[in-house]
Amino acid sequence: MKVVDVITEVFHYKSRVVRDADGHGHPGPERDAAQTLLRIVTDEGIEGCCFGGPVDAIQRIARSALIGEALLPRAHLKRLNVWQRLRIGVLSDKALCAVDLALWDLAGHALNQPIHRLLGAYRDKVRAYASTMCGDELPGGLDTPEAYADFAEQCKERGYTAFKLHGWMPPIAWAPDARRDVAACRAVRQRVGDGMALMLDPFHYYSREEALYIGRELEKLDFAWMEEPMDEHSTASYVWLTEQLALPVCGPETAEGKLQTRAEWIVQKASDISRGGVWDVGGITPLMKIAHLCEAFGVSLEIHGNGVGNLHALCAMPIPGAYYERGLLHPFLDYDQPPPWLHEAVDPMDSEGWVHVSPRPGLGMNINFDYIRSHTQ
Amino acid sequence: MKVVDVITEVFHYKSRVVRDADGHGHPGPERDAAQTLLRIVTDEGIEGCCFGGPVDAIQRIARSALIGEALLPRAHLKRLNVWQRLRIGVLSDKALCAVDLALWDLAGHALNQPIHRLLGAYRDKVRAYASTMCGDELPGGLDTPEAYADFAEQCKERGYTAFKLHGWMPPIAWAPDARRDVAACRAVRQRVGDGMALMLDPFHYYSREEALYIGRELEKLDFAWMEEPMDEHSTASYVWLTEQLALPVCGPETAEGKLQTRAEWIVQKASDISRGGVWDVGGITPLMKIAHLCEAFGVSLEIHGNGVGNLHALCAMPIPGAYYERGLLHPFLDYDQPPPWLHEAVDPMDSEGWVHVSPRPGLGMNINFDYIRSHTQ
Repeated sequence: MKVVDVITEVFHYKSRVVRDADGHGHPGPERDAAQTLLRIVTDEGIEGCCFGGPVDAIQRIARSALIGEALLPRAHLKRLNVWQRLRIGVLSDKALCAVDLALWDLAGHALNQPIHRLLGAYRDKVRAYASTMCGDELPGGLDTPEAYADFAEQCKERGYTAFKLHGWMPPIAWAPDARRDVAACRAVRQRVGDGMALMLDPFHYYSREEALYIGRELEKLDFAWMEEPMDEHSTASYVWLTEQLALPVCGPETAEGKLQTRAEWIVQKASDISRGGVWDVGGITPLMKIAHLCEAFGVSLEIHGNGVGNLHALCAMPIPGAYYERGLLHPFLDYDQPPPWLHEAVDPMDSEGWVHVSPRPGLGMNINFDYIRSHTQ
Repeated sequence: MKVVDVITEVFHYKSRVVRDADGHGHPGPERDAAQTLLRIVTDEGIEGCCFGGPVDAIQRIARSALIGEALLPRAHLKRLNVWQRLRIGVLSDKALCAVDLALWDLAGHALNQPIHRLLGAYRDKVRAYASTMCGDELPGGLDTPEAYADFAEQCKERGYTAFKLHGWMPPIAWAPDARRDVAACRAVRQRVGDGMALMLDPFHYYSREEALYIGRELEKLDFAWMEEPMDEHSTASYVWLTEQLALPVCGPETAEGKLQTRAEWIVQKASDISRGGVWDVGGITPLMKIAHLCEAFGVSLEIHGNGVGNLHALCAMPIPGAYYERGLLHPFLDYDQPPPWLHEAVDPMDSEGWVHVSPRPGLGMNINFDYIRSHTQ
């Protein structure tokens, strides 16, 4: 089986998520938005698909590594890694992720197996935490500590057993504000009681002193972990912070360098829990290597971000990841409704807070190709 | 697909390899020997096979973890890991390896793919080194430095580009003898010239001082690496040795503890090159995790031992492993001839020293079931 074409289709849909100047999503008026479908096509008619990823880098650079390659070998992924060095910021890990996910989807369809089983399944469901959007100034949205508490209560009623706050961040004029982040965490804990696991993902450029202050307060509130409150390129800052906190520090998340960076953080004791998602590290293939690295050191790995690739990886991991990150959520939006290009959500959650992975082949997505065809540029 | 039976068959063959009191193989008079075939049988008639492994532990302990399990999930392997704790020395990594290899063989047959491709193939051939048996006192065998040199020359003519000596070991009365080991290494280097990669696997209980002496001499002889010359349970001894030698130290090999032990050796800098084989660490599944661990740290992993499981792992590894260990070899024995239970060798080597992995499904073994049936107890 040979790859004969790499097709990227851009199609349109209506979105109610708008981006602020710093790139964070919030609810907003309905607007035109675009989504990408990557299709890796073989001479036997079997295809692998993935939504998302940078079209230009995939077509101009990655394409030439894929055409002609047979099914299943991963040598071309190694080649793409090498190509990244002279194309930093162009051939990103997001481009590699899209290619890797589509190749896994292709393998799963060719072999009639879901990806988490091809990888050696350890489970078929994972607990989710409700992961909020960043704080905002929308009345009744996520505008006050009380609003976070209201929303946490709603999420608990929906079935979530864990809840993660994203704090307030620029471009909000008065953000960041470490005391207000803590106030929101305190309001949530007081509202939901002791039984719900809570986490915080705050502004990512706090000072060391602000990060330590937040961490000490979260210890009092019995939080499960705190994510990167400082620039992740300063590993020394994380060594400093982790040493002082009993609260588990979870990272790195977006730091470049895939498994090598996670290895450095482990040996330098820069965090307690390792972190990464398929879109951060270049796909399922490197994310599974990170899971194996973490297993060798007895370190947990909490997966960053939602999406079907992360869910398959979680179900194939022999160590925690305790949680799937479901979201980003907001009181004004209905996350359970699938996007128009899918007949059903990739991460359905039951009333006890378990997200179930699809037993269908490949990524297991139930794609609405009619919608895509009628909305393509 | 469900596992409905776990069958272990013991059958007889004639062997010309005899074991000395310490367990090392040497050429000897033809004798009756026994081999084991493990078969994991499913309700759909597809089977996974593996030769070798302890029958008793597989049937008394591992069996109950396998019956009823569906294809591909690896949760039962995790359970077997847990069971090892209270059954140290009974449920060994060799038992786990046999089960793991048979499960991979089963998956490969069910999906019609060779295992190295299921794991993400990076290559389909690997250079071999000729790996000698331990030294002996057989005239014209491996009884003198000169005899090793003669044999290295023969191996070079056969196509090998690399040659590894196993030194003289007890129960030979005068062994070990560090100076004689070095003399053999020197004789081989002088005979084969500069172009052939050379390695030494000496007696495994030398003192620190003897190990350092051997290492310093091998540096002068431009050896590629030295394997474990001291008790591997003394990690401190290996940190001490590796720090002083420019010669790459390769290990650990038989130390218990799978990927966790390899992680410790890496962070403690106890060796330059990591090591392990499927029979040391419990199968292909944990060996691939070790390959990913090593990749995260930029450390090479040289695979211990021959056999089809190790060959598939090597072909799925994105980092060196530069070599497949072909042997053990001896001037009196014809390694290229397959054992009677196989129609062809699992590790055929061409005239340029490349060993080719089978493209057939699963482990790719071409088994002579007629022979096995007519020689079963």
